Amino acid sequence: MGGTLKFGLIGAGRIGRLHAENIVRHIPEAELIWVADVVEEAAAKLARELGVVRWGKDYEAVLDDPEVDAVLICTSTDTHARIIRDAAAAGKHIFCEKPLALDLGEIDRALEAVEKAGVILQVGFHRRFDPNFRRLKEMLAEGTIGRPWLLKITSYDPAPPPLSYVKVSGGIFLDMTIHDFDMARFLLGEVEEVYAAGSVLVDPEIGVAGDVDTAVVTLVFESGALGVITNCRKASYGHDQRIEVLGEKGGLFAENPLPHTALFADEGGYRSAPLHYFFMERYREAYIAEMKAFVEAVREGKVPPVTGRDGKIPVVMGYAAKRSLKERRPVKLSEITG
Amino acid sequence: MGGTLKFGLIGAGRIGRLHAENIVRHIPEAELIWVADVVEEAAAKLARELGVVRWGKDYEAVLDDPEVDAVLICTSTDTHARIIRDAAAAGKHIFCEKPLALDLGEIDRALEAVEKAGVILQVGFHRRFDPNFRRLKEMLAEGTIGRPWLLKITSYDPAPPPLSYVKVSGGIFLDMTIHDFDMARFLLGEVEEVYAAGSVLVDPEIGVAGDVDTAVVTLVFESGALGVITNCRKASYGHDQRIEVLGEKGGLFAENPLPHTALFADEGGYRSAPLHYFFMERYREAYIAEMKAFVEAVREGKVPPVTGRDGKIPVVMGYAAKRSLKERRPVKLSEITG
Amino acid sequence: MGGTLKFGLIGAGRIGRLHAENIVRHIPEAELIWVADVVEEAAAKLARELGVVRWGKDYEAVLDDPEVDAVLICTSTDTHARIIRDAAAAGKHIFCEKPLALDLGEIDRALEAVEKAGVILQVGFHRRFDPNFRRLKEMLAEGTIGRPWLLKITSYDPAPPPLSYVKVSGGIFLDMTIHDFDMARFLLGEVEEVYAAGSVLVDPEIGVAGDVDTAVVTLVFESGALGVITNCRKASYGHDQRIEVLGEKGGLFAENPLPHTALFADEGGYRSAPLHYFFMERYREAYIAEMKAFVEAVREGKVPPVTGRDGKIPVVMGYAAKRSLKERRPVKLSEITG
Amino acid sequence: MGGTLKFGLIGAGRIGRLHAENIVRHIPEAELIWVADVVEEAAAKLARELGVVRWGKDYEAVLDDPEVDAVLICTSTDTHARIIRDAAAAGKHIFCEKPLALDLGEIDRALEAVEKAGVILQVGFHRRFDPNFRRLKEMLAEGTIGRPWLLKITSYDPAPPPLSYVKVSGGIFLDMTIHDFDMARFLLGEVEEVYAAGSVLVDPEIGVAGDVDTAVVTLVFESGALGVITNCRKASYGHDQRIEVLGEKGGLFAENPLPHTALFADEGGYRSAPLHYFFMERYREAYIAEMKAFVEAVREGKVPPVTGRDGKIPVVMGYAAKRSLKERRPVKLSEITG
Repeated sequence: MGGTLKFGLIGAGRIGRLHAENIVRHIPEAELIWVADVVEEAAAKLARELGVVRWGKDYEAVLDDPEVDAVLICTSTDTHARIIRDAAAAGKHIFCEKPLALDLGEIDRALEAVEKAGVILQVGFHRRFDPNFRRLKEMLAEGTIGRPWLLKITSYDPAPPPLSYVKVSGGIFLDMTIHDFDMARFLLGEVEEVYAAGSVLVDPEIGVAGDVDTAVVTLVFESGALGVITNCRKASYGHDQRIEVLGEKGGLFAENPLPHTALFADEGGYRSAPLHYFFMERYREAYIAEMKAFVEAVREGKVPPVTGRDGKIPVVMGYAAKRSLKERRPVKLSEITG
Repeated sequence: MGGTLKFGLIGAGRIGRLHAENIVRHIPEAELIWVADVVEEAAAKLARELGVVRWGKDYEAVLDDPEVDAVLICTSTDTHARIIRDAAAAGKHIFCEKPLALDLGEIDRALEAVEKAGVILQVGFHRRFDPNFRRLKEMLAEGTIGRPWLLKITSYDPAPPPLSYVKVSGGIFLDMTIHDFDMARFLLGEVEEVYAAGSVLVDPEIGVAGDVDTAVVTLVFESGALGVITNCRKASYGHDQRIEVLGEKGGLFAENPLPHTALFADEGGYRSAPLHYFFMERYREAYIAEMKAFVEAVREGKVPPVTGRDGKIPVVMGYAAKRSLKERRPVKLSEITG
Repeated sequence: MGGTLKFGLIGAGRIGRLHAENIVRHIPEAELIWVADVVEEAAAKLARELGVVRWGKDYEAVLDDPEVDAVLICTSTDTHARIIRDAAAAGKHIFCEKPLALDLGEIDRALEAVEKAGVILQVGFHRRFDPNFRRLKEMLAEGTIGRPWLLKITSYDPAPPPLSYVKVSGGIFLDMTIHDFDMARFLLGEVEEVYAAGSVLVDPEIGVAGDVDTAVVTLVFESGALGVITNCRKASYGHDQRIEVLGEKGGLFAENPLPHTALFADEGGYRSAPLHYFFMERYREAYIAEMKAFVEAVREGKVPPVTGRDGKIPVVMGYAAKRSLKERRPVKLSEITG
Repeated sequence: MGGTLKFGLIGAGRIGRLHAENIVRHIPEAELIWVADVVEEAAAKLARELGVVRWGKDYEAVLDDPEVDAVLICTSTDTHARIIRDAAAAGKHIFCEKPLALDLGEIDRALEAVEKAGVILQVGFHRRFDPNFRRLKEMLAEGTIGRPWLLKITSYDPAPPPLSYVKVSGGIFLDMTIHDFDMARFLLGEVEEVYAAGSVLVDPEIGVAGDVDTAVVTLVFESGALGVITNCRKASYGHDQRIEVLGEKGGLFAENPLPHTALFADEGGYRSAPLHYFFMERYREAYIAEMKAFVEAVREGKVPPVTGRDGKIPVVMGYAAKRSLKERRPVKLSEITG
């Protein structure tokens, strides 16, 4: 065949393993040939499981391998920008998990390196590839409801992340709402201004750590359309992720998919399944689809469906939301600069 | 106006009271001016509550009253045919609860009397007036699914009737399935043959009384279409009444309406309301609509939406089902004669 | 009986007629004995239709009639406060449509008059009586989801009101969102602060009239819980009115009731009924229930379920939202004074 | 690892390819090492695509290969029994597509050969592995609804098979209803008697070929419970497959899963996705799960979840249904013998 895309994985944690397995099982056009992780054992273990013969501690070895066509960056956020720059310099195509970085200057330098090297960079906003949201986006693009007026994104996690993560993640707007910011842009285009209200309701320790756990973020799009994102770190009934768009000719709704369709009825009423609890189950198909899209973009030299700029703007929106919450006023994206 | 239709109610039990209240509250074109019941106190009580000044024990007094335009026959089944004949002879229009009678000869004599007198007779198959089934019927009539091929009627009661009733009702096919037989004809036209399977599962006493409590009845329509009715005397989750029609161009479904739309979600899933338990709540609107239709038919001299023949055929079908169950073979309606 | 509550209706327009019919048909404990309207013919017409013998042009005649126990104020908003004061002075109990008035000083004077007279005043926030929202409220009160964290109210009208109305209504926050403000308080208690974003998307003429037609209003409750109301003057698919509450133990959802449950399926998928278009159909049961509650409150001398204060605070919230939109900042309710 | 289960595929058509791909992609505990097909090119093509190095025309070569642990029999029905006997004689474990054979004597001889050889045989009733039906089965087994009374299986294909297939398939009861017969036994245990009504409504050519295209099959279980299967060769809205069970404590329902959850609403109502059209999409997960179960049964020496007897009885039921339709009477399974 010759033409399979050869991947090196950098970062063999939970999300790295997910992508690696998807490549091996679901993408015949690609191969995984390298696994690197700062914890060498983790790299070795995953490599063995997937029948990959090259592994090691240092990502530089992946970049030095001339057989590697593309890297998957699944390391901790603070290393993303540097690895992107190095990978670009090595002429490797890049799939990088979100966020690109927490520092906007770092993001800009990474994007410049990518542009200069002429490699393809795709950022891991997997929700764009969810079949339900994708269908909604298609119907929107087909003009089904005409001009969109009002976007509503519901996005609740089943349980808060560990406090240790909350302390370094950049806060709810940069680690959780960032997905919704991306979705907002994906569906209705650029946002001009955000207003964020937040409260500590789920766990007071989150407040002690300087963050909120429940938030309502109002968006004003450049088109004049409005949007609202509701977030909460905990929904006991599972990973609640829904989207609605009201437009001049009707409404579009993407509901939660349920794990199964079985119902039980008795005197107490009808009971259906709870939602998927874990994001990896909820977005199983989306993760496969995003990787297929990356492979296709690289193989065909196309613009990837989530560009570097798409990786940057949601970070800008996260900072705007943080400033809005702090200063208790709407904040324009144009106020935020690296 | 002068033209309100003046009703005399014969039989002030549960269903009589329901119709009486509907006339008083919901049908400005009609009035209730007489209440008769063999239990005179029952007549008096209902009359007082509804501000009706004439009441008594004997239905003949109602028929003798020249001001009465129409009678509502809500007495026990064994009296229906006689009262119909007498009412027809007195020139009164007639709304009679189902079944017309358990004896086909009696039904024929009653219908002859009605025809001879030229009065209007409507039989109380209220489900035809349910807004959900009505909408399904309309869509069918509009050709939405083209030629219908397969009808499925689900019809479960929330709890069995008293055994005393089971013993005199004529059995499940004549007291319960009769509604579904009517619905089948209403939707897909005449039935040629029925096959009934039955079992005693809910309560062995029902078996002792000579009846079954769970049944599957297969219908072959004259058009060649097939149908199936599933019945059970008990569904712990409420009065489950659904209809489906598969046709050449698609499917039509009338689902159960729920008492309210509130849902609760937690780790165990989503829970909605149980079904309406009681048929009077489930079919509240249908009972009003059928009486409005009768009033309209009388006032405008139109054929009523449920004729005497519509009252007879489901009884024939009930006997065919009984014979089928007993003789363990499909039975043609043409085999059943008074 | 002697004990029926005798009503005089003041204002025989659309909503007045609705209440009048409900009293006559659905509330045996009440009677309608007077109809007044500045357009005398309108009063006469409605009175005739409902069999009411007293009618006239001047509401003072209603107040002067010693047989009248209670008045229904269904006139234009600018007259509410004055009629309330006069009715209170005449010792009549009062059911008044919302809003009490657009001037907070007027509201205060009206409420003082009511208090001084010791009469009962109920304000017409009918949505509290919708069976779906009511069930949600009950489950919330029963602690089903524990402490509530996040309230979402979706409230879209099927089509904008006439521009002439937009110009005098006080704007979207005082004529439309006011219902949602009431619902927010009904469900989660007092609100401390609002932030409103708005846009003119449905009809530029609404913008010319100085109003917005699409809005997102963020609420901060005194409890720390957050809320968001989304409003639009037009949803082509009908009167979309939904509520969600996320709490520590789960979620509650009140979905839109559909006019019927019939579905049609073909190659294009499943199609269900559109929403109720008209608020009078959507809230038919709620209007009856609110009037029953008023009658019960008066007859039993109880605090009515929607008090004068409940009538005032949503107006305060409306002004806070208007100021927030204008000054582009969150506004505390305490900033708003008559 | 050493322990992967090595498969030889016999029959590289549509369903053979499906199983082959599932083994390669989704079952790390198994390997595909042989592909045989009477059309050698088909075998070669599939082998190449999946990286399998051994292929050929004759299934005997697969059986002769000592490395092969198990065979997948995906050939035409008339060859199943012979290949099973040969495979058993060769000591290979066997996964065989349904039906085992159309001749009951052939089935018995094949099952005897399997038993004598002590190999594991699993029959391809994939619907048992559908996550929705599986969940229903689990709830039933957990006693959620107590004793089951009434089973309803809806099973419509999106379009009729080619007439050439109809002529050799054994008819609707042996090629289509057979899945529903298996499901009935899986859920409620053994069936004592069947009654079948059938009609030619979809395509008169099916009637000319001696078959019906629409059927209602009543089941009487040994437990006394009743069941009904409704079948149609064509449902324009897709592959409609639903199950309901009514029991003493409630009802269980397994609804159709939809391809996506996006909805569109306008004046015409709400529209959801059509059903999956193709059974391979509808049952994608079920096919993987059944093969995993087979691999697990072989590796752990367990009784497979669908035994040879489970493969035989539905064929018996198919013949009982055919006889019932022909003789127009209920037929006991005990009447059917090879």
